[in-house]
Amino acid sequence: MPREITAFSNPLVKYARELRDKKHRRGARQFMAEGLRILTEARETGRLPRILFYAAANADHPLVHALSIDVEMAGGESIQTTPDILSKLSGKDNPQAVVGVFDEFDRTLADLDRGSSGIWLVAERLRDPGNLGTILRTADAVGAGGLILIGECVDPFSVEAVRASMGALFTIPVVRSEWAEFLGWLREEPGQLVGLSLDTEHDYRAARYAAPTFLLTGNEAQGMPADYAAACDLLVKIPMLGKADSLNAAVATAVMAYEVLAQQRR
Amino acid sequence: MPREITAFSNPLVKYARELRDKKHRRGARQFMAEGLRILTEARETGRLPRILFYAAANADHPLVHALSIDVEMAGGESIQTTPDILSKLSGKDNPQAVVGVFDEFDRTLADLDRGSSGIWLVAERLRDPGNLGTILRTADAVGAGGLILIGECVDPFSVEAVRASMGALFTIPVVRSEWAEFLGWLREEPGQLVGLSLDTEHDYRAARYAAPTFLLTGNEAQGMPADYAAACDLLVKIPMLGKADSLNAAVATAVMAYEVLAQQRR
Repeated sequence: MPREITAFSNPLVKYARELRDKKHRRGARQFMAEGLRILTEARETGRLPRILFYAAANADHPLVHALSIDVEMAGGESIQTTPDILSKLSGKDNPQAVVGVFDEFDRTLADLDRGSSGIWLVAERLRDPGNLGTILRTADAVGAGGLILIGECVDPFSVEAVRASMGALFTIPVVRSEWAEFLGWLREEPGQLVGLSLDTEHDYRAARYAAPTFLLTGNEAQGMPADYAAACDLLVKIPMLGKADSLNAAVATAVMAYEVLAQQRR
Repeated sequence: MPREITAFSNPLVKYARELRDKKHRRGARQFMAEGLRILTEARETGRLPRILFYAAANADHPLVHALSIDVEMAGGESIQTTPDILSKLSGKDNPQAVVGVFDEFDRTLADLDRGSSGIWLVAERLRDPGNLGTILRTADAVGAGGLILIGECVDPFSVEAVRASMGALFTIPVVRSEWAEFLGWLREEPGQLVGLSLDTEHDYRAARYAAPTFLLTGNEAQGMPADYAAACDLLVKIPMLGKADSLNAAVATAVMAYEVLAQQRR
């Protein structure tokens, strides 16, 4: 049976709230995801929250009900609570109907099956959680095999990244790696490393991509280091006709990924 | 000569700080932009802040110096201040070197010269300021003629939108309009209205675009109303191979805009 919690001081509420903080997340190796759509997406990929919070008013919603039963069957906690506590958990005035606490699921390069897709996304020193989530969403849309994060990237399990991913965090494998380790793994088998750059004459539309293509996007402010660029099989640029001469990193990744997808589908 | 202000209670500091709030912005018809890159971009397009705040430590930076002189020549206030006050103004722990207060510059449809570009971006009920700024940045990159905002959109002069635009707010004309007014204006002269939709069989790559193309992106959560879709000359979809069946609105706009650009450059 679901428990009812209405006190802000409840330890489970406090625990979940603290997962918004990176330090606590790192210690607990758990993270928070919100929203019926995202939690249902997670459930369909076989991931259930360890703790599920939902508003009493939504108890009879069929998807909430199904989530609650599955969580309890799996030995988790299903907690009926108030809109105020959901607001506190999500940090938003209009909270989602459900908030879940999940175990983190880190993968390593060895877990990836590079034959599973012709497109892989690689981002180095990505700093913005919204960009990370948006890139995951794009990865899902183009059918990418996964997202590989190189170096000091923002935490993919941060509330903002999970939110921006719209559930893709659960459908797309994410691996955190260092550059040397990634490069070693990459070169063990065929794979084309394509870097997005401003310092090249190769237009991204004129270039030809060979599956599996690994698309490397550099840091939002600085782009990628020169030695990373030198290690690429191909550097390509997206034309920019304006004055600012820059695209958002998630946008640039998506424009590239859709070109690769279009070529691979021909 | 620049004034020096070190007190949080100074009325100019208070005034600028309040521009983060939509209500104050609306009354004052002024907005705040931060960062040397963005303010220099603004200066190059002929827009100078009415009030310029900069950290004393950056007073000798050539771009800060040039900005300060131009602001004073134009009758504005140039204010040397502390990192703490810049933090308070920008709402960030690591503030930018400069913060400027600018007059808003609303344009109307009549101000647009549709012969000036083959690509125009149109967004309806866009709610996320980051998306708006990112779309402006994309508009700059593809050489779009402008961005037309339909209905209740987020304020393009909000701090978050200005920040995400990376200066493109100053280079790309933005017009706020209602749907009926926009449609009337659009049909006065040639122009192809292309809607991004999930409910069509037309692949965005197979479609053919005729300049000037007006790319319509719907609300982040709901897409566009049926009657807006019905008014389009063409509906196209971006293939989505994943489970989530959605792309970030700014990403979808960019993928479309780059396809139109590629066709128009052929």
